Amino acid sequence: MKKNKLPAQLLLGPVPAAMIGCGNGDINNIITLAWVGVVNSNPPLLSIAVRPGRYSHDLIRNSGEFTVNLPSVEQVAEADGCGTLSGRDTNKFERYGLTAVRGTLSCAPLIEECPVSMECLVEQTLSLGSHTLFIGRVVASYVAENVTDARGKIDFEKSGLLGFCSGNYLETVPLNLTLGYTLKKDD
Amino acid sequence: MKKNKLPAQLLLGPVPAAMIGCGNGDINNIITLAWVGVVNSNPPLLSIAVRPGRYSHDLIRNSGEFTVNLPSVEQVAEADGCGTLSGRDTNKFERYGLTAVRGTLSCAPLIEECPVSMECLVEQTLSLGSHTLFIGRVVASYVAENVTDARGKIDFEKSGLLGFCSGNYLETVPLNLTLGYTLKKDD
Repeated sequence: MKKNKLPAQLLLGPVPAAMIGCGNGDINNIITLAWVGVVNSNPPLLSIAVRPGRYSHDLIRNSGEFTVNLPSVEQVAEADGCGTLSGRDTNKFERYGLTAVRGTLSCAPLIEECPVSMECLVEQTLSLGSHTLFIGRVVASYVAENVTDARGKIDFEKSGLLGFCSGNYLETVPLNLTLGYTLKKDD
Repeated sequence: MKKNKLPAQLLLGPVPAAMIGCGNGDINNIITLAWVGVVNSNPPLLSIAVRPGRYSHDLIRNSGEFTVNLPSVEQVAEADGCGTLSGRDTNKFERYGLTAVRGTLSCAPLIEECPVSMECLVEQTLSLGSHTLFIGRVVASYVAENVTDARGKIDFEKSGLLGFCSGNYLETVPLNLTLGYTLKKDD
């Protein structure tokens, strides 16, 4: 396989197109981020990278809270709009007909219409250059009943989680293969 | 949409099933990780979370280098095996017929057969609990010619990047929608 060497650039994927809920108790906002990842298993920690100039940045910094809501591919327009418009000018919940729901956090709302959600408390904040990295501990997780399988797990056929890579939205389809399946086959 | 509240758990997805190359100049190893994400745009920074007990952990810590190689769905068996077997017992390049290629780094090899690769230098190391978070700066990026489109970008139909969520492997399919497409439609 011949590969072309390119200037250093972020080609990681698929990454989530995650709709981040934040607020201050009065205002509820959404920012869609792809720079989201798991950084630790125990305790369960996620990171989200937010530019300091974004309206959501100070809402998250001041409240110490955010939610991570995973849209399905059917919600790609809402996800895209919530990543490009600013909450300074637009109430994104109203514009996109989304419902802010209070979970266990004081300020950061859940997005009712997203099939999977997590609530996070900020544990560490790192300034890395263009972005601030908020590391949050997952304190509660939610899965919609209509994307849950018989064992109580996410049915990835039904959830159709939206992905992203290098400026492009991606659909996800389950391969029906689970972690460690090749080792089990060897036994 | 009715959602079930679950115990706090990491349901983020899709995340990459990234094959991480590492080494010490003599030994070349691969560890497949899903706890990988972008943490900053400028400079381009990625994070990978590795358990301290994994063989790759000290190879990365001591060399200060790693590569991120994205497998296609056709490489799911190799990706799974490289995530479950240990490099202490197995030469994973030999076992899976993969080719270690020297890029610009001294110790961490690229995986020739993966369609997309990045080389990273460790800039920060955080101990977060179960995992060590290595934050690496991307110093070179590579895309295979046979997954490159006419504009020199990744063709996501051809690359078929492998994804992961909550123990399950996912296929990715391009939606042919790019970041900001809804805003352009509004103009």
